[in-house]
Amino acid sequence: MRTLYHWPLDPASRQARIALGEKKLKFRLEPINPWSISEKYLALSPEGTPPTLVEATPDGQIVITGVRAISEYVEDTTSRHPILGPTPRDRAEARRLCSWFDEKFTQEVNAYLLHEKVEKIVTGGGNPDTAILRAGRDHLNFHLEYMVWLLEQRPWLAGHDFSMADIAAGAHLSCLDFLGEVHWKNWPRLKEWYQKFKSRPSVRPILADRVPGLTPPRYYADLDF
Amino acid sequence: MRTLYHWPLDPASRQARIALGEKKLKFRLEPINPWSISEKYLALSPEGTPPTLVEATPDGQIVITGVRAISEYVEDTTSRHPILGPTPRDRAEARRLCSWFDEKFTQEVNAYLLHEKVEKIVTGGGNPDTAILRAGRDHLNFHLEYMVWLLEQRPWLAGHDFSMADIAAGAHLSCLDFLGEVHWKNWPRLKEWYQKFKSRPSVRPILADRVPGLTPPRYYADLDF
Repeated sequence: MRTLYHWPLDPASRQARIALGEKKLKFRLEPINPWSISEKYLALSPEGTPPTLVEATPDGQIVITGVRAISEYVEDTTSRHPILGPTPRDRAEARRLCSWFDEKFTQEVNAYLLHEKVEKIVTGGGNPDTAILRAGRDHLNFHLEYMVWLLEQRPWLAGHDFSMADIAAGAHLSCLDFLGEVHWKNWPRLKEWYQKFKSRPSVRPILADRVPGLTPPRYYADLDF
Repeated sequence: MRTLYHWPLDPASRQARIALGEKKLKFRLEPINPWSISEKYLALSPEGTPPTLVEATPDGQIVITGVRAISEYVEDTTSRHPILGPTPRDRAEARRLCSWFDEKFTQEVNAYLLHEKVEKIVTGGGNPDTAILRAGRDHLNFHLEYMVWLLEQRPWLAGHDFSMADIAAGAHLSCLDFLGEVHWKNWPRLKEWYQKFKSRPSVRPILADRVPGLTPPRYYADLDF
């Protein structure tokens, strides 16, 4: 049996869910509020930050916190439906882009937009600051331009095949799309890629998640948007 | 031929150097000032943050930015002297701890101590703020306690073998040790581990690096400290 501790609008948790889904692994979801961590969860994961995967194995229980370690673990232990490409170059490029999204994108976009539009709502921290939103949107445009530049050279972000890089980028963009922050009509090449991403069976259940106090745009879960 | 773009007191750059060193791979070092990035480096790495590995291969040049992608790449392409353990559990634990240091430790310790004691000196940002230093030192104690707890159960941080987790932790602690921030006499078990880390041929050259304006403690590069 497998349990994934997650928070629905957390890009890292979404990546872990999609990675498990791509591998067709069955798992139970256990929601965590990142701003009000229980002692029980802390005892399991001293990091105190989802995602955490708990898996019963013949050698005892395995507990893994962190999206990179979880994604590598499922790739390491389940060879079907690879989420890293066939060559060292492909794998390096996918991992480079995962860090891009988990570090650079998180610092330059999420710390502005998700913080102002989600964390403040969930924690009762007041209204979003419009100057911070503006800065986050400028940064987002830079990142979307970079993604378009990559997709002009290759069908998927890291190369010929769908990979962890698409999972990382798609998970991040899906959270921003929940907030209506991606203006798809300005980004036709990106929209095409995101349509393919959204239609994957691993992604569909995530788009059905809702968070109290927040309403996504009407087109959010639609494949035609 | 291989080139590693790095900054001497950057824990991520140090990790990449140690990973290459563990694999006995030859490389040329190219210093980067993270606070004054050249156009040439940006053209190579849009991330704009060291470390970046550039490697000439029979299939053309490979450019990888980011410590996780670089470390995984050397493990992927050079099987001798593994830096990930033999079982999926070992590898998951090592990767979990790498994220611990690169995310949690960076946010809770480096953002306080390295920022105040290094970035401010290098960028002319004024004197360290004593309240911020105090908070960073409190956080550091929590992390050192956690490392001791792990090392009471295993010879190396992620298990039976030296791994990426030791490289990550050692690289971070070596930067703080350069600033005299680790009081080894309070941490005998940790000191024993750090002595073994310091004595590795991959680590020795790093301890010879100096940064203008900063002087490490006398014992910094000594194996007996």
